[in-house]
Amino acid sequence: MVVHVNAATSVDGKLASRRREQLAISGPDDFARVERVRAANDAVMVGVGTVLADDPSLTVDDADLVAEREERGAPPQPTRVVADSNARTPPDARVLDGAAPTIVLVASDAPAERVAAIEAAGATVVSVGDERVALPAAFGELAERGLVDVMVEGGGELIFSLFDAGLVDELSVYIGSTVIGGRDAPTLADGEGFVENYPDLDLTGVERIDDGVLLRYDC
Amino acid sequence: MVVHVNAATSVDGKLASRRREQLAISGPDDFARVERVRAANDAVMVGVGTVLADDPSLTVDDADLVAEREERGAPPQPTRVVADSNARTPPDARVLDGAAPTIVLVASDAPAERVAAIEAAGATVVSVGDERVALPAAFGELAERGLVDVMVEGGGELIFSLFDAGLVDELSVYIGSTVIGGRDAPTLADGEGFVENYPDLDLTGVERIDDGVLLRYDC
Ligand SMILES: NC(=O)c1ccc[n+]([C@@H]2O[C@H](COP(=O)([O-])OP(=O)(O)OC[C@H]3O[C@@H](n4cnc5c(N)ncnc54)[C@H](OP(=O)(O)O)[C@@H]3O)[C@@H](O)[C@H]2O)c1
Ligand SMILES: NC(=O)c1ccc[n+]([C@@H]2O[C@H](COP(=O)([O-])OP(=O)(O)OC[C@H]3O[C@@H](n4cnc5c(N)ncnc54)[C@H](OP(=O)(O)O)[C@@H]3O)[C@@H](O)[C@H]2O)c1
Repeated sequence: MVVHVNAATSVDGKLASRRREQLAISGPDDFARVERVRAANDAVMVGVGTVLADDPSLTVDDADLVAEREERGAPPQPTRVVADSNARTPPDARVLDGAAPTIVLVASDAPAERVAAIEAAGATVVSVGDERVALPAAFGELAERGLVDVMVEGGGELIFSLFDAGLVDELSVYIGSTVIGGRDAPTLADGEGFVENYPDLDLTGVERIDDGVLLRYDC
Repeated sequence: MVVHVNAATSVDGKLASRRREQLAISGPDDFARVERVRAANDAVMVGVGTVLADDPSLTVDDADLVAEREERGAPPQPTRVVADSNARTPPDARVLDGAAPTIVLVASDAPAERVAAIEAAGATVVSVGDERVALPAAFGELAERGLVDVMVEGGGELIFSLFDAGLVDELSVYIGSTVIGGRDAPTLADGEGFVENYPDLDLTGVERIDDGVLLRYDC
């Protein structure tokens, strides 16, 4: 099982503005790199905050990358995974459009009618945890379904929880050459935050891409 | 007039933990670099939030760097400058210890007795702005005193205001290989945050230092 977190931030660590509006932080070369990382993984995961804010499709759009997946016996698209304790994913969200398999991770407290609506839209709902998605159990469920290489694309709440649970193996962060600012803007790692035992990462790569820089870490 | 902002952040853009406790983000080589930047400038500026949180001395401690300053006809220490609208700098703060000249920038609404206490501790109080320190006027006052090369060492509230006012010429950020996390932890640029017209920086340098990386930008 390898969990690879990938995100793009401003120089000040923000994922988006305080309005949580998506912003083109990186450029075409980094977009292409993100597609390649997606294509190399069994699953692509986000938190429901990202679904609600950005409505991403999380699919591999490049036909060559899809063909490469099929050549190595993989399904054409990685499975999309949403961490969504209360089943808040809207039934008309792009991740439920059927363009790729989708698993919505919920907690056992999730309202049954919303779970049913998500299932009716064609996704598989997996219940792990009581009030909130229990991430170690969630990755166990993914592994049982053969999803062992998982890319996480955000947002900051999910990424913090993953670091807090010691579940991140690799981190890549594209730092775009802009400042977003804002006490309330989402950052790469939000949540409660650490006050001790800060994760000690190992910087393994520094690469200029577009007009920013990609930093890679082993975690 | 050149305004150079320098700070150290975690990979997720945080200056400190949510407890606002200082944290060794960088290592000895970056500390030495920061001292050299300090020594190269006429003034070293912070916001009062940093004074209250960290009680920094902001002096050049390396005797060789002090000697170099004197050789080129500069005073032994750069002038310390605190942006402190309400004169909240404690009279026993290190920046008021007399080890270097200090200017405290206040607004005209600052309580007279606190202004008097700061002056009694030996600092020069300069009033610029009504409710909050007006930064363009503040830099004008500094320039009139011959302080034209100014290093800003944080924190995130002051840095955001400087970007917002278009006053930053150069930015250097040391990104340490750790994650701090926390929705409420201070970041490199806090304040209200931009929602449009994001500053467009020019990445001029990428250098590995200690176990992190230093990014330099023209602004
Ligand atoms: N620049 C980039 O690369 C990038 C990438 C992604 C997102 N973004 C931006 O990030 C923002 C969204 O980030 P976000 O932090 O608000 O949302 P997020 O991390 O995508 O989702 C957070 C939500 O996930 C759910 N969740 C379920 N289990 C969780 C667990 N164990 N730990 C943490 N969360 C869990 C929680 O809601 P429940 O409690 O209801 O389950 C939580 O509120 C948007 O502004 C988006 O534009 C940017
Ligand atoms: N890692 C690093 O490199 C580094 C460097 C510095 C600080 N830090 C950390 O950063 C934190 C402090 O940062 P901070 O953002 O809270 O404080 P800050 O930026 O140092 O100071 C903010 C305060 O400055 C005053 N100020 C005066 N004029 C201003 C203006 N025009 N715009 C903005 N502020 C103005 C405001 O108080 P008034 O309204 O009362 O004037 C404001 O609350 C601490 O946790 C510290 O450890 C880290």
